[in-house]
Amino acid sequence: MKIITVSREFGSGGREVGKRLADEMGIAYYDKEILTAISEKIKMDADYIQKKLESGFSHTIPLTFGRTINSIGQRMDVVNMMIEQQKVIKGIAEKGEDFVIVGRNADIILKNYHPFNIFVYADIKSRIERSMGRNEAENLSEKELVKYIKQIDSNRRKSRELISNTKWGEKSNYDLCINTSDVTIKTIIPCIADYIKATSGGKK
Amino acid sequence: MKIITVSREFGSGGREVGKRLADEMGIAYYDKEILTAISEKIKMDADYIQKKLESGFSHTIPLTFGRTINSIGQRMDVVNMMIEQQKVIKGIAEKGEDFVIVGRNADIILKNYHPFNIFVYADIKSRIERSMGRNEAENLSEKELVKYIKQIDSNRRKSRELISNTKWGEKSNYDLCINTSDVTIKTIIPCIADYIKATSGGKK
Repeated sequence: MKIITVSREFGSGGREVGKRLADEMGIAYYDKEILTAISEKIKMDADYIQKKLESGFSHTIPLTFGRTINSIGQRMDVVNMMIEQQKVIKGIAEKGEDFVIVGRNADIILKNYHPFNIFVYADIKSRIERSMGRNEAENLSEKELVKYIKQIDSNRRKSRELISNTKWGEKSNYDLCINTSDVTIKTIIPCIADYIKATSGGKK
Repeated sequence: MKIITVSREFGSGGREVGKRLADEMGIAYYDKEILTAISEKIKMDADYIQKKLESGFSHTIPLTFGRTINSIGQRMDVVNMMIEQQKVIKGIAEKGEDFVIVGRNADIILKNYHPFNIFVYADIKSRIERSMGRNEAENLSEKELVKYIKQIDSNRRKSRELISNTKWGEKSNYDLCINTSDVTIKTIIPCIADYIKATSGGKK
């Protein structure tokens, strides 16, 4: 059984790497299905869950006394969502089939399965270019987009720190770190698939 | 023209990666030839030069007044060797042929040639195992070996800082970072060669 996790900087094309890699290797790819499963479990809208999980705790810090109770409630929502997400991800792994999963701290959550962990990163120029086409970036100036990119990365870093004492993006936590600046992602997918196959014999 | 630089943590198998990669791609590999060229230029023994370049400035800090002059002399030696090394490396690149070069801050020295930069790293357990067979590690206890590994890495970090404001081992400075813990190096070489070929179209 082989699990491949893809962690990534926002705008680095990590999701594309994950999706194409699963296609190349002919194995399952988990993404929106995870949100749907959480949504069914906690009876909340999947889009809302996605937004809350992405923003982490950054928008739920109480600023005034009047907002405190509401904020605590919101934070509890995020905590519940994260717990459910962990259960869903572990449930997928328990099926015993090969799969690729992007983000969601899956490398930590599934560490007992010894997944192959990839980190995808790129320079800020490439990340701006790759983000431009996204819905959430549509009405942002370049300056606002850079701020947004850094905010999302910061949320990812924090949500990892919550469940692990290892650092998000620190190369020692990954088997392979891929710089996608000026790289056409589809051209590197077969090499990455071969790399994973080549090392799987030696991996514990 | 393609230049591939391999930077590496001590004991991670980076030299093996470089050597095998050059063989796989059928291109030149530069290592001892660089020392020989420096040796001819500054009329010093190649082994002595290698030792001095590896130790960097760490053994040449004056501890007492009596040792100061000698230490300054030694430091000048290292500086001269580094300058000559840079000239030799640039000279190789000027020939216009493809090659692989390991260490020596070649990624910085040759940055105008837009080399493909690899960083090889591994966990400390693997690095101890890989270092055990080396001459310089022969009479060291495991504790001493760990200290030695960290010292060499620290020297590499410092010698990079001397000529660049970017950090040694920081993934954003490399195109591909490879974790060789529990990996049989020869199995990954064809994949790395394919990866370099696949990205070379997109690279500036």
